[in-house]
Amino acid sequence: MGGTDTRNLTRQLADYVVGAKLEDIPQDARKEARRALLNFVGCALGGSRHEAMDITLAALGPYAGAPTARVLGRAEQVDPLLASLLNGISSHVHDYDDTTPSNYIHPTSPVASALFAHASVHAVRGADLELAYALGYEIVTRIGDATYPAHYDAGWHSTGSVGVFGAAVAIGKLLNLDAGRMVWAIGLAATQSAGLREMFGSMAKSFHPGRSAQSGYMAALLAQRGFTAGTHALEGPRGFAAVESAAYDLAIVADGLGRQYHFHQNTYKPFPCGIVVHPTIDACIQLRRSHGIEAGNIAAVRLRVAPLVRDLCDKQAISTGLEGKFSVYHAAAIGLARGKAGLAEFTDETVNDPLVRQVRQRVRAEADPAMPEDSVHVEVAMADGKTHSLMLEHSLGNLQRPLSDAQLEDKFRDQAGMLPATQVEALIEACWQLERIDDVRKLVALAVPRAG
Amino acid sequence: MGGTDTRNLTRQLADYVVGAKLEDIPQDARKEARRALLNFVGCALGGSRHEAMDITLAALGPYAGAPTARVLGRAEQVDPLLASLLNGISSHVHDYDDTTPSNYIHPTSPVASALFAHASVHAVRGADLELAYALGYEIVTRIGDATYPAHYDAGWHSTGSVGVFGAAVAIGKLLNLDAGRMVWAIGLAATQSAGLREMFGSMAKSFHPGRSAQSGYMAALLAQRGFTAGTHALEGPRGFAAVESAAYDLAIVADGLGRQYHFHQNTYKPFPCGIVVHPTIDACIQLRRSHGIEAGNIAAVRLRVAPLVRDLCDKQAISTGLEGKFSVYHAAAIGLARGKAGLAEFTDETVNDPLVRQVRQRVRAEADPAMPEDSVHVEVAMADGKTHSLMLEHSLGNLQRPLSDAQLEDKFRDQAGMLPATQVEALIEACWQLERIDDVRKLVALAVPRAG
Repeated sequence: MGGTDTRNLTRQLADYVVGAKLEDIPQDARKEARRALLNFVGCALGGSRHEAMDITLAALGPYAGAPTARVLGRAEQVDPLLASLLNGISSHVHDYDDTTPSNYIHPTSPVASALFAHASVHAVRGADLELAYALGYEIVTRIGDATYPAHYDAGWHSTGSVGVFGAAVAIGKLLNLDAGRMVWAIGLAATQSAGLREMFGSMAKSFHPGRSAQSGYMAALLAQRGFTAGTHALEGPRGFAAVESAAYDLAIVADGLGRQYHFHQNTYKPFPCGIVVHPTIDACIQLRRSHGIEAGNIAAVRLRVAPLVRDLCDKQAISTGLEGKFSVYHAAAIGLARGKAGLAEFTDETVNDPLVRQVRQRVRAEADPAMPEDSVHVEVAMADGKTHSLMLEHSLGNLQRPLSDAQLEDKFRDQAGMLPATQVEALIEACWQLERIDDVRKLVALAVPRAG
Repeated sequence: MGGTDTRNLTRQLADYVVGAKLEDIPQDARKEARRALLNFVGCALGGSRHEAMDITLAALGPYAGAPTARVLGRAEQVDPLLASLLNGISSHVHDYDDTTPSNYIHPTSPVASALFAHASVHAVRGADLELAYALGYEIVTRIGDATYPAHYDAGWHSTGSVGVFGAAVAIGKLLNLDAGRMVWAIGLAATQSAGLREMFGSMAKSFHPGRSAQSGYMAALLAQRGFTAGTHALEGPRGFAAVESAAYDLAIVADGLGRQYHFHQNTYKPFPCGIVVHPTIDACIQLRRSHGIEAGNIAAVRLRVAPLVRDLCDKQAISTGLEGKFSVYHAAAIGLARGKAGLAEFTDETVNDPLVRQVRQRVRAEADPAMPEDSVHVEVAMADGKTHSLMLEHSLGNLQRPLSDAQLEDKFRDQAGMLPATQVEALIEACWQLERIDDVRKLVALAVPRAG
């Protein structure tokens, strides 16, 4: 841990969050924060019609409080805590949201889901929301980096288990908690830290950022009123790091706090599925284009992938769209058979399409410890004996090939079909102009279907 | 794991819960279930006026749904999910609720808090609530035993992290979930499993059973509507046991399921504080009585305790009642200075009482690996040179010296001061007669202050 003193790390974080100002954050980090929020709002719209949303509204709507809050993409109004859960589910349910490759966390969903729910009810300036989000992102990324890989490898879905800290400090910042209460908010977040990777492939995966948003939000509300918590939630002998991570370096959380920002570590997905199969999709689309491959004539597909890919996405016999998001075999099949991988390629229908299934069954994936996680080698053997192969170094959307602003906007538009086109353009513009918006409710109003 | 096949343990548990009938449970287990519920209701009343309750109502009340549900001991009405959180906080906030010494879980609070919240709104027969509770208790105890001590030793407050399973299956039983949905309910419970021992000594400890009750309740509601989860939440490679316990034996969860019940493992506290300091209190009260000890004349107190006692309760410099509940030094001081240890001995006022503080500062505690956790050796040296000592083998309330029905009733009455005496007696009788009550709302009506 070098010379960094982390014995009062929770308090250090609280002090930092309480004192932080938007003007202290460099312009490039703030620009990246707005890119992340644009991407988040688009993903929340894209997932807003998912069955998991309808189920959650049906199950929990009868228990909801006064319907003051808006859910992005939905006409229904609920209370702000339930809205935070719903925003979290919608924004992650297609596995299309952002990812920090250094720790495999989807950092924005748990933080922004709570913030937009809160800001749909209260007067919040865009600059204040951007600051609160930036702090939440930063805390999530730092705690994620400090506990990666042990925490994730153990089986935690850190988007949930770490994301809850970001929601708590972000809402705590909007509530103007003092440092003592911010410490309690972090404590109440830590003690709700949860989310198991065993849930991958089910709706419960999207529940994780949603529940973390809601739990972090609740943590800040309770702390605001004086609900006490342990004061060493992160660093204590029975705190988050010791309990949930076999190895960690808490100095990573503290080092450069307030001087260094980690927005450059964030990436945006071009494909709505597990990020580790993106190189495979990208390479297969390129192969199809370059060689005019007809999927019906494919005899065999051989992938060489990083071991993590098989670790996470090794299911070949699948029947649902959700399972397809975590199948490297399906990833190869849609790249070769469809030449694209949008929301439509991860439906139950596509997964059960005879041609897609046929190609999927002909894919073999070999784990190669020398293969970086951004890369893949694909070899396609055709029925006529020809073979085509490609070594892809970096996948689109990864750190070396980031999506441009225009590509982010296109991704946004693709997911915003429930809104009129003019409203979509106004919403995109509002996300870019976030710092200048005097009341975020104006932005939120553009993100819901108009009545009538 | 012997010959027990636990590869589909989650499904096994679901099948068991779905098929279980009250008449399959032996009468002695059912009687013990009613003793546990009587104790629970009393503790919920006793904690209902705690500041943590007022804070939670103030913080979350504005977000609560339709006020259809009752909170035990309170006049306010809230929605059933918030009521489950509040019942969990009140019933555990004085650390006066039940404990299974085999795993140090307080098993009833997370389960019954959800059940009474639900049954305050819906027509539930007493026999059905008793059955649902018994199943929840049994699942909590079995999972607790299967993962003890590794899970607890790592720093998990298993009352929360394991309790959530009990709430989910108990509410799932009342909702008549089929086995497939019960599996999802267990999955959604597992993925909300949380609660850190780092919170001990703060209000957040009581938040754990409350939040577990609420999370388990929500898990069952979501599963009922079809929210999917992983199907191997307990036993899967990234499921609860693998992720949250360095060692475990899942055969313990499955063995004798439906044939053996574990209610004989449950104990009820005579003192509202950490159970590991009970022998110290008991012995000090006995010493004071036997020798007419005057606390002002105590020169030194030497305790020999099990190592776990110092592990959990080693704080000598304390200033709050909550801290006092987890200080073996305070435990000795009140036993010797007050001769009793009721709710009044764990207030801020008593902790700061000059005489109590003086005695507390004169206590030394030695961890003796040969000392059982139920036992203590106390030696008191007086200013006049005399010494008194006692070796206590078993503490009141532990498995070898259980509280009688009458003692449980006395404990109940001591905590029910906000209700008229006749109402208290009717409520006690209703708890004993639970199996014959046609609608639990009649019992709940006795457990809240009457309007006007």
